[in-house]
Amino acid sequence: MQQFLSVADAPDINALLEKARAHKANPFGQHHLGKQKMVINLFFNPSLRTRISTEKAARQLGCDVITYDAGGGWGIEFEDGAVMNLNTAEHVREAAGVLSQYCDILCVRSFPGLKDREADYRDQVMQAFVRHATVPVVSLESATRHPLQSLADCLTIAEHRTKSRPKVVLTWAPHPRQLPQCVANSFAEWMLAWGEVDLTIANPEGFDLAPAFAPPAIVTHDQRAAFAGADFIYAKNWSAYTDYGATTADCGDWTVDEAKMALTNDAHFMHCLPVRRNVVVSDGVIDSKRSLVLQQANNRTWAAQAVLGTILGG
Amino acid sequence: MQQFLSVADAPDINALLEKARAHKANPFGQHHLGKQKMVINLFFNPSLRTRISTEKAARQLGCDVITYDAGGGWGIEFEDGAVMNLNTAEHVREAAGVLSQYCDILCVRSFPGLKDREADYRDQVMQAFVRHATVPVVSLESATRHPLQSLADCLTIAEHRTKSRPKVVLTWAPHPRQLPQCVANSFAEWMLAWGEVDLTIANPEGFDLAPAFAPPAIVTHDQRAAFAGADFIYAKNWSAYTDYGATTADCGDWTVDEAKMALTNDAHFMHCLPVRRNVVVSDGVIDSKRSLVLQQANNRTWAAQAVLGTILGG
Amino acid sequence: MQQFLSVADAPDINALLEKARAHKANPFGQHHLGKQKMVINLFFNPSLRTRISTEKAARQLGCDVITYDAGGGWGIEFEDGAVMNLNTAEHVREAAGVLSQYCDILCVRSFPGLKDREADYRDQVMQAFVRHATVPVVSLESATRHPLQSLADCLTIAEHRTKSRPKVVLTWAPHPRQLPQCVANSFAEWMLAWGEVDLTIANPEGFDLAPAFAPPAIVTHDQRAAFAGADFIYAKNWSAYTDYGATTADCGDWTVDEAKMALTNDAHFMHCLPVRRNVVVSDGVIDSKRSLVLQQANNRTWAAQAVLGTILGG
Repeated sequence: MQQFLSVADAPDINALLEKARAHKANPFGQHHLGKQKMVINLFFNPSLRTRISTEKAARQLGCDVITYDAGGGWGIEFEDGAVMNLNTAEHVREAAGVLSQYCDILCVRSFPGLKDREADYRDQVMQAFVRHATVPVVSLESATRHPLQSLADCLTIAEHRTKSRPKVVLTWAPHPRQLPQCVANSFAEWMLAWGEVDLTIANPEGFDLAPAFAPPAIVTHDQRAAFAGADFIYAKNWSAYTDYGATTADCGDWTVDEAKMALTNDAHFMHCLPVRRNVVVSDGVIDSKRSLVLQQANNRTWAAQAVLGTILGG
Repeated sequence: MQQFLSVADAPDINALLEKARAHKANPFGQHHLGKQKMVINLFFNPSLRTRISTEKAARQLGCDVITYDAGGGWGIEFEDGAVMNLNTAEHVREAAGVLSQYCDILCVRSFPGLKDREADYRDQVMQAFVRHATVPVVSLESATRHPLQSLADCLTIAEHRTKSRPKVVLTWAPHPRQLPQCVANSFAEWMLAWGEVDLTIANPEGFDLAPAFAPPAIVTHDQRAAFAGADFIYAKNWSAYTDYGATTADCGDWTVDEAKMALTNDAHFMHCLPVRRNVVVSDGVIDSKRSLVLQQANNRTWAAQAVLGTILGG
Repeated sequence: MQQFLSVADAPDINALLEKARAHKANPFGQHHLGKQKMVINLFFNPSLRTRISTEKAARQLGCDVITYDAGGGWGIEFEDGAVMNLNTAEHVREAAGVLSQYCDILCVRSFPGLKDREADYRDQVMQAFVRHATVPVVSLESATRHPLQSLADCLTIAEHRTKSRPKVVLTWAPHPRQLPQCVANSFAEWMLAWGEVDLTIANPEGFDLAPAFAPPAIVTHDQRAAFAGADFIYAKNWSAYTDYGATTADCGDWTVDEAKMALTNDAHFMHCLPVRRNVVVSDGVIDSKRSLVLQQANNRTWAAQAVLGTILGG
């Protein structure tokens, strides 16, 4: 594995899940892999779960880790040929080139602007680091995808499924802010590639994900119909792809609550966190025994450890 | 020891001091205790001494440490049942639950708003983390107490006393800003529980600490009388408890200076730092050979190591 | 070596370069030196290369490292005798005294205000830490010098020279912001002290460095003449020393481009980074095979490791 940006970098998801399970059972069992190796985590926006789980994973592999918060004004230039006499202080060619000399794996977290769809979906920041880095690059979330979250989600589903092809529903849910499509895009992409679940995506009209991630055949605008017989409900808000970045103020009835969960096959509830209680999901659902949100967060560590360990040759 | 929030969590202070002394004599002597353990330090406001001494203590015990600065806009919701459609992005139930999965000890630093006394004295942030965490919680200062500082102060007094029941004076001192009562509350609480010193608290009228921390019998408003025959002078500013959060502009004569120190039994001078020179204390006093302020800061490491080590089973 | 502030602390530059080369060849070869040692890095302004290379160097020596970002409002008082009733919260006497108790080496990064030349050139912050610290202090750049950069630059030149006394040109280059003179001052100071290169400094009139760093005999205002026959071109912007802090908007013709490089003896191009492309240097030059900017950044690690290792007794 030379990079980890999307499901395309994980040709055998079950093999990766097997590694994640092995790390979870024995966190320091491959502590030798990272001996004298350095992982740099570069964050362009704040993070709690991703930062801590990735650091923990790297250290359990024996790596040294430096986390660098680049959010505060390190203006990076991404355009080739730019005359840098304005607000950018360093070109990504140097940024990626320099960081590559200081580490063995470069993990990058970026985010979309949610204004220019073409620009966001080119995934400029992540792709520029991949192009100019000379070490493997791992996405800690990009403008369009969040693959480590999805791998953790696969692991959580694998741990809790009780039948061979569980029905998994990815449902849009309300949120007061404008959020990226990354988690939803990646979840759909990984579920489809994994091929071990039946995926349905439920969202209001106008909130269909990009067709490349969500084939129209599995998309419905009827949340209740989607919930019928579901084994896993995965809730997430995202802003619109079509009317790019649009949000809506009046979709309160998309909140996941006990009445809707009663339509399911005693489904587990999932969310990547942080979650707005009583907006995205009712207290009754997230506090129930069927809620897996903490297990998902825990599995972030093992997902990261599986990926970093694989890159390190484990 | 399953938590460390106040002196109530240290039933045998002398035993804890003995451990601190042992760590000080041999900092890496219990390096095995923290093997494969993770300590997370969560700061809701900036810190120098507390952050560095706690990290150092944890690492000397062999732990891995991740320090997370949550000051910058990680809006945490503390109210149960809240509809989170405004400024809070994550409920403390998830925050504490998730962090508990990533660490073996969770250290939290919070602070009071100094506007609503009831709210501050409920110690909402710390108590919420204690309630929802599934690992031991250590206070790195809360809205009302700073127990690791007090333990370090006990150690410093124990190291420098030359008689069995030294007279210790906690004296209010001027300061241009509105400060919490935490350090003073905890110092009083620990001195009284320790029972090996005679404590007097001197402060201007209107600045009495909460009665639960400062029994009226040991409080005086006459600083000079308090200093007479004192063996240790512990200076600290705090805002008012009665007229909650009030400060005063005209108490310059409460500055600890050489003339006042001449009233004492050649007392040692103590302060938790940072200290405003020539406002709280004159240069002549803090620069004298009787000043213990650097020793106190040094002892923060050994106090933290005693507490973390005890939690880890040492 | 008890401190590292300027070339005066490196009486034998070649011996230090030899150590840097040894670390580069075998990064963990002296991992025992830092066993149970703590390095604190104190930053008063943001840093990428310096922070990461210094942390990496310290860890490769086996040290523990804590990096503390003091940029956000830790108001330190530097004046002795100050009545601290305004904006400073801690005196450097306590700051340096306390940090000295927590570490074995204290690394400090400060910067000039570029308004008051006398104040900047007294190097108040660095000198105050040196005066009040009780452990060795290493400069990670001060108001006037950047010695670790210069040591890395010496190493880079030593690795790439093909003759005994190469011609090295330090050339001013345009920049839209007001920058310190540190890198240029130190580069000149180290090249002259090293004595193994012929140094010429080229800058526009009005931009001569302080005479203590740049003897008039080696300064020219004719960039093209300077480039003739040069083996190394070291580009850097700096604001004026004479009209202190002044910058200029109309020196575009000082950009280092292919036409100027054609005047040289197929010179290598050097810059400390970050660099404004097509302002300081053209894409064609920095992307050429003769560019050494990434090698310089890489050598920061080995320079830091040589200095820290020497202080640790290696």
